Amino acid sequence: MIESTPTPATAAPTAVQGYSPRTGTPVGEPLPASTGPEVERAVAAAQAAAPAWAARSGAERAEVLEAVADALDAARAELVAVADAETALGEPRLTGEVGRTSGQLRMFAGLLRAGAHVGAVLSPADPTLGRPDVRRMLHPIGVVAVFAASNFPFAFSVAGGDTASAWAAGCPVVVKVHEAHPATSLAVARVVRTALTTAGASADLLGLVAGRAAGGPLVTHPGIAAVGFTGSLAGGRALFDLASGRPDPIPFFGELGSVNPVVVLPAAAAERTEDLAAGYLGSLTLGTGQFCTNPGLLFVPEDTKLLDAIATRARTATGGPMLSARIRDAYEGGTSARAGRELARGTAAEGAWAVAPVVWHADLAEFLAHAAELTEETFGPAGLVVTYADEDALLAALGRLPGSLTGSVHTVEADHPLAARVAAALRPRVGRLIHNGWPTGVAVCWAMHHGGPWPATTAPGHTSVGGTALERWLVPTAYQDWPDALLPPELRDANPLGVPRVTQP
Amino acid sequence: MIESTPTPATAAPTAVQGYSPRTGTPVGEPLPASTGPEVERAVAAAQAAAPAWAARSGAERAEVLEAVADALDAARAELVAVADAETALGEPRLTGEVGRTSGQLRMFAGLLRAGAHVGAVLSPADPTLGRPDVRRMLHPIGVVAVFAASNFPFAFSVAGGDTASAWAAGCPVVVKVHEAHPATSLAVARVVRTALTTAGASADLLGLVAGRAAGGPLVTHPGIAAVGFTGSLAGGRALFDLASGRPDPIPFFGELGSVNPVVVLPAAAAERTEDLAAGYLGSLTLGTGQFCTNPGLLFVPEDTKLLDAIATRARTATGGPMLSARIRDAYEGGTSARAGRELARGTAAEGAWAVAPVVWHADLAEFLAHAAELTEETFGPAGLVVTYADEDALLAALGRLPGSLTGSVHTVEADHPLAARVAAALRPRVGRLIHNGWPTGVAVCWAMHHGGPWPATTAPGHTSVGGTALERWLVPTAYQDWPDALLPPELRDANPLGVPRVTQP
Repeated sequence: MIESTPTPATAAPTAVQGYSPRTGTPVGEPLPASTGPEVERAVAAAQAAAPAWAARSGAERAEVLEAVADALDAARAELVAVADAETALGEPRLTGEVGRTSGQLRMFAGLLRAGAHVGAVLSPADPTLGRPDVRRMLHPIGVVAVFAASNFPFAFSVAGGDTASAWAAGCPVVVKVHEAHPATSLAVARVVRTALTTAGASADLLGLVAGRAAGGPLVTHPGIAAVGFTGSLAGGRALFDLASGRPDPIPFFGELGSVNPVVVLPAAAAERTEDLAAGYLGSLTLGTGQFCTNPGLLFVPEDTKLLDAIATRARTATGGPMLSARIRDAYEGGTSARAGRELARGTAAEGAWAVAPVVWHADLAEFLAHAAELTEETFGPAGLVVTYADEDALLAALGRLPGSLTGSVHTVEADHPLAARVAAALRPRVGRLIHNGWPTGVAVCWAMHHGGPWPATTAPGHTSVGGTALERWLVPTAYQDWPDALLPPELRDANPLGVPRVTQP
Repeated sequence: MIESTPTPATAAPTAVQGYSPRTGTPVGEPLPASTGPEVERAVAAAQAAAPAWAARSGAERAEVLEAVADALDAARAELVAVADAETALGEPRLTGEVGRTSGQLRMFAGLLRAGAHVGAVLSPADPTLGRPDVRRMLHPIGVVAVFAASNFPFAFSVAGGDTASAWAAGCPVVVKVHEAHPATSLAVARVVRTALTTAGASADLLGLVAGRAAGGPLVTHPGIAAVGFTGSLAGGRALFDLASGRPDPIPFFGELGSVNPVVVLPAAAAERTEDLAAGYLGSLTLGTGQFCTNPGLLFVPEDTKLLDAIATRARTATGGPMLSARIRDAYEGGTSARAGRELARGTAAEGAWAVAPVVWHADLAEFLAHAAELTEETFGPAGLVVTYADEDALLAALGRLPGSLTGSVHTVEADHPLAARVAAALRPRVGRLIHNGWPTGVAVCWAMHHGGPWPATTAPGHTSVGGTALERWLVPTAYQDWPDALLPPELRDANPLGVPRVTQP
């Protein structure tokens, strides 16, 4: 049943091995790369688990999500230890990330209890118009393939946001583990599968496949109904093309890359100079710059002291080890392409794959002349500062930026009239508009939107973080003229589950 | 700026000419086929009109939609005359369809006034969690390309559902007119553009392009943000591939084809025999079968009189002229491929492109052995009746059907236990589940869902009819920590527009 891409003449690796970014040496046992039949088995097991999971009410699924959250919290120390060995992200950050991951599961549990995820809309029969009784609600789409990201070994990985939102929607998942943390992935999967079973759900709500060669067969498998992906533009594009090229194309929700423009307005630059320089370097180097929301592009006014303040701080900034040798190599390649514009360079910390922060500089005219190259994302602690003299030229340039997950504006009160124009120019290009803040840090809350136009995401109407993330995995059904007893409970006259419903007047 | 497909060596037609299906002779003046520069101009004009339209509140847009609805109603006689000449669908049907089209515009106006289309969600700041203030709402996606359908010269054409929902969402549209009714398209566009101007909106909220060769350049134009399409599987797939293959892929919402299974349960077949036979033939031949929701596949129990009753009525059924010579040819080709299974054939009415209704028959085993061929849509008054002996075999077969817009179940009280199982089997394969009704006739109401899995649509989470149709043209923005005065009115503390909002507890 698998329509796989042809096997290349050079055989794919037979195992996925984790390494320490600090020492470059192996961590844990290798995870065997999944063969075609193993992908087939993982999807088949998830398909078998789907009907019972879809049939549970939102409140019933909420209990299971909370049980998984509790199990992750209980295993926190063990999980953080293996993740730190594989990613070098450090205990404090990783401890927080487990909490973010369990908190995300609990947020979806809360949403399920609130019931709005079923999107119930009722149009009562109107005999004068000849209109039947029509009642609409959302149902789970089927088995979801999730491609884990390198940079959040918990929150965007095996039990991360895509998985949590798919479970909440009523969908089993098959996760393709990320090569940068196979041992962490396996440890999380063991905790999760045990917790699922203990909570009375099928362990097969979570399947794992490993190895880059498993990605294509997973996306093209007839049993997969939709895909969630967080990763690189090249990798995401290739999988998006496979999903779109199927005999039966399926939705592909990918987050591919983002430069996250930040605009400092003139009065803010003058009044908050040191604060802004410190905030920028902090955001740029946080987690060694390995965030989708890293501030890759900063616009600051000419003729202020801000550029100097940034340069001064950048020179004393310290980098750290990147998540993998591959990511380190891509970063070094990226920086050399912009070498002629270097404003300042910090120092690499110790560690096998450590890199140094870099800040480049261009004026607005130079930036526009080379916009395609200079707006490519550099994954790591590197950013371009663009100085602008003219507000109208700034606004025109903002309107031409590629799609990003975020756009930020720094102001003081005197900047507010201009801030409104800047926000209007940025809004169509980004998914989240931030005021007087930095883009790193994505709050997990109902109103969050973590999306944006291409290349930020492949599906601009959807988000991979926040309460509406589960909308990706739901499809509507309209029920026309059904006897009340044969309707799903959410649509019956008595509304026994008490879900919120919109009724046409 | 146009990335067009290569011009074939044989030049594309330079004009689109309408013809009478009754006589095969030309109707009205030919519409010049749009050249590349003309597509460019149409998109540029729509882009220029976009910001002012997007900036209007929902209530302001509602007034304009109602003005267009009034203008269509006022021009009804003129519009029906030209459409009847080009389509032969008849005055009563076409008069009703103008009302459906203006009613649809008014439905969206009502939704805009209710304000729920902005999808406002508020997550208040929580300092104990370090959570910022996040407020989310939806904004228009940009200029939408609409591909008109042949079979609804008003309701799925120039001012039809895709256009109305895009306008409601705040998006200008460029419509690629359908070759089967160019004169009608031009007449509607004139009425609409005048009404837009009179109502104080830009006439360029509606642009027209004509000719099949204009489709590719329109879909690949960088100024187009999303596509709405209703038409054939082959044409829709080609355009979907173009949209997905762009350097910046865009959402493509296509409705491509549907066999609309109808299942008659045993007790209903016995008790309601004549009623069901009459209802089936009525639905099958309505509008000469030229509906996306035509009941192409009917499951009936063996050993009842229903099959005979259907055959008897089919022999006396009368067809009619098809919308175009091309559609007539496709119908005749389709019927010959299934010739060995003919149960009954009616008579063609008078008219150049008239065809006769046909009903085929297969038992469940035969059907399953040739399912791929026998579930292909035949556009026109033709359907396959499948007889089943065994309930479990029926249920298994239903689970293997291709995606459809609708699935219908006919019951009497004694059938209800089986009806629940049939509905559960059909639900994942269809967008609308109908009880004791026929699929033709799609009520325009808030709860309607007109969608379904591939090949019914390219985007299973979305609908082209109903209140949620405008969700296709909206993208979210999250506003983080913005001063109240700089937020859109829908998100300000005071909620001056009074839109419904969900607030995270």
